[in-house]
Amino acid sequence: MEKSSIPLKGLDAYVRSVRREFEEKLAELVEIPTISMDPDRQPDIERGADLAVEYLKAIGAQAEKVQTSGNPVVFGQLIVDRRYPTVAIYNHLDVQPANEPEWVREPFTFFKHDDRYEGRGTTDDKGPALTALMAVRYAVDNGIPLNFKFFWEMEEEIGSPHFEQFMKKKRREVKTDSVLVSDTIWISRTKPAIPYGLRGLLGFTLTLETGKKDAHSGTTGGAARNPIGELCQLIAQCYDARTGRVKIPGFYRDVKRASAEEIQNYLASGFSVRRFMRAHEFKSLRFTDPARVLKSIMAEPTFEVHGIVGGYVGPGVKTVIPPRAEAKISTRLVPHQDPDKIFQLVRDFVRSKNPDVKVTHEATLRPYLGEFTGPYADAGRRAVTFAFGKEPAFTREGGSIGAIVTLEERLGVPIVFLGLSLPEHGYHAPNENYDWGQASGGMKMFVKYFSEIAQLNR
Amino acid sequence: MEKSSIPLKGLDAYVRSVRREFEEKLAELVEIPTISMDPDRQPDIERGADLAVEYLKAIGAQAEKVQTSGNPVVFGQLIVDRRYPTVAIYNHLDVQPANEPEWVREPFTFFKHDDRYEGRGTTDDKGPALTALMAVRYAVDNGIPLNFKFFWEMEEEIGSPHFEQFMKKKRREVKTDSVLVSDTIWISRTKPAIPYGLRGLLGFTLTLETGKKDAHSGTTGGAARNPIGELCQLIAQCYDARTGRVKIPGFYRDVKRASAEEIQNYLASGFSVRRFMRAHEFKSLRFTDPARVLKSIMAEPTFEVHGIVGGYVGPGVKTVIPPRAEAKISTRLVPHQDPDKIFQLVRDFVRSKNPDVKVTHEATLRPYLGEFTGPYADAGRRAVTFAFGKEPAFTREGGSIGAIVTLEERLGVPIVFLGLSLPEHGYHAPNENYDWGQASGGMKMFVKYFSEIAQLNR
Repeated sequence: MEKSSIPLKGLDAYVRSVRREFEEKLAELVEIPTISMDPDRQPDIERGADLAVEYLKAIGAQAEKVQTSGNPVVFGQLIVDRRYPTVAIYNHLDVQPANEPEWVREPFTFFKHDDRYEGRGTTDDKGPALTALMAVRYAVDNGIPLNFKFFWEMEEEIGSPHFEQFMKKKRREVKTDSVLVSDTIWISRTKPAIPYGLRGLLGFTLTLETGKKDAHSGTTGGAARNPIGELCQLIAQCYDARTGRVKIPGFYRDVKRASAEEIQNYLASGFSVRRFMRAHEFKSLRFTDPARVLKSIMAEPTFEVHGIVGGYVGPGVKTVIPPRAEAKISTRLVPHQDPDKIFQLVRDFVRSKNPDVKVTHEATLRPYLGEFTGPYADAGRRAVTFAFGKEPAFTREGGSIGAIVTLEERLGVPIVFLGLSLPEHGYHAPNENYDWGQASGGMKMFVKYFSEIAQLNR
Repeated sequence: MEKSSIPLKGLDAYVRSVRREFEEKLAELVEIPTISMDPDRQPDIERGADLAVEYLKAIGAQAEKVQTSGNPVVFGQLIVDRRYPTVAIYNHLDVQPANEPEWVREPFTFFKHDDRYEGRGTTDDKGPALTALMAVRYAVDNGIPLNFKFFWEMEEEIGSPHFEQFMKKKRREVKTDSVLVSDTIWISRTKPAIPYGLRGLLGFTLTLETGKKDAHSGTTGGAARNPIGELCQLIAQCYDARTGRVKIPGFYRDVKRASAEEIQNYLASGFSVRRFMRAHEFKSLRFTDPARVLKSIMAEPTFEVHGIVGGYVGPGVKTVIPPRAEAKISTRLVPHQDPDKIFQLVRDFVRSKNPDVKVTHEATLRPYLGEFTGPYADAGRRAVTFAFGKEPAFTREGGSIGAIVTLEERLGVPIVFLGLSLPEHGYHAPNENYDWGQASGGMKMFVKYFSEIAQLNR
């Protein structure tokens, strides 16, 4: 059996031996505040990318910063033998802002406490990126017959607006037989999860202008139109906020409904409504049944109002009628909803209900659905079981990773998500952290995965 | 006929002779920024009140600043003969803020251009107050058999929260046979208007808290409640924003419907939908029929959303689900709606639709309805016709003057509104102004009115 030839015996010792190096590299990377949302952090983005290039070169890869009209993409290639199959590893090195008052320590100072590493970016996604890097070095040094490519993005947190530009620019060099993505979250520490789908996103604003200046609600109220009131009414016509059900005709037409098997997979993820509520500090939810909750966050589209601008927001009530109001809205989309088609539905619906309301497109991310069966999913399952001693649950992520749909469309190869973040890691939240348990398990998982997929594509 | 004994012959000459004094006094008063909404203007409020006391003393009145827990009320008494009937004159000397970028000149520097006087407070309500003061001096000097009292408030623009305190403190001294209010607006320059009703106000907030921190709409969207969406839905259940129709059961129960005669009176005011839209810079209105528009601003209650707090209001769309949202709402109320009863209806309705939403009371002003017939209304009609050569239209004001209901309840005497502001005066707007045409006509109107009511109550 070929697999016996894959050298996994020294792996435990290797993982123990690189701990110090891993921590030092993670510390250095975390202390560069690569906040892609903040234009003032541009020099940090470049510094972070430069450091990443260094890390890649240190393991023998060719590496460069590929410039785009936005932030660069760090692109690495470690071609051992052109006859070997290739895996491309996707991670991102930009991070969320860290303004939350709940941070106990300075978010961009790396803090190590026993097995735990604290700081913005530790779990999303610098820690998993370095975990994979360490695994690649072991795989190469120990003769696993694979070539490696690295797509380390610096714009994931702002929707990957220039990732496609990178893919086009390097269209020949990015070719690969499969993609490994490590930027997702388990549902529970006790149960590894392999997501195979992502929701998409359509963001838009609704704007209504009924006048040019504030009006006095005494002198004009009754005859004057109220743009906030009309947007509220329109939003209530678009969806039932109590249940989340979207009322725009045709909205659900292309939704691929989750099968009974999929729902069973979600339920096997270790999900608990109580823990979910505690983690996100919700007072109540729309649903209490676990299957219903999981379906609504993994396999169903949403309609969400993020804010309403215009009008008075100071203390008390100032009885003014504003001339203009804007509602900030997004819908998360699921396979096979098409954001362009949905935008058209929204625009037509708004026109039919309140033609004075302007609909402005803000953002598009297409939904993604991969496979939870087949050789690559099987390789993932075996890798997870090998490293963490438990079969993974196959789930879907409720969020969106802009680059994934681009990868799928431009490469047309299997994409496998082997994430390492845990709910308690504070993904997108204050006091973000990562831990040695996930890093060390992750290295073993990746090495095993590489050894598995090296057997395919031959 | 008794009226012939009233000396109106020298009136024209008197009015001409006081023009310079009027302008100087108005300038001095306007240049004190008595903005009651701005706590930093407290010293200006006091300075303005001190100057007003001086002005009253200069015409021979007893005058004092009556302190309350808020701003003082300037109280003057000019008792000529205890056997004469008394009229109390209500004006206010506080003003709106003047932050609008559209101001062409410094709002608190008095500017005279031919017959026009510019500056915050010129028409609302310092100009009319001084107009009445000049008329009183003439009336007293020329033997019109009346006593005069002055209620010059410094909190009208913030809803008169301490006026009742003043009325209680001076309960014996404030007694009068009638009240004259000069703080209202004609509908058109070409047609004087005497309002006989005011809308009331109930201000409240709707607050919904569904969590403790921002949630990620990818990770939690679908299961997470959206407090902005739910408030929009609740608001749409409360009223139809397109028509303004309130859907809360019982809301219209106590509304005294405007009679056909009243509607005819409103239509006689010189109102034009086109001018109304231009004055307030509206792009469109709920209604286009003049009678429908007038009814909706004068004789019908409203439901108004002034602002929604919570959520993201920066550029673009940030896909966060906020933990909390607040809607700032008021209803203008008409006779005989009771604000306390309406608040109860709102609270019960909200509880039935979304029990997690908290309703917080913010402000109450009761509606007021006087008479447009009877001896005082007749005196007003004759005074207006005498001074401006045109019969007045009897209208209702859509706004609220907090002190009026207090005056009605505590004094129980007729209240007549002889306002002098014109639509083009920029009431509550940038480039506020007043003019000598209205001031000189106003002096004659008041003198004639005093001579008329001196015949009553004997």
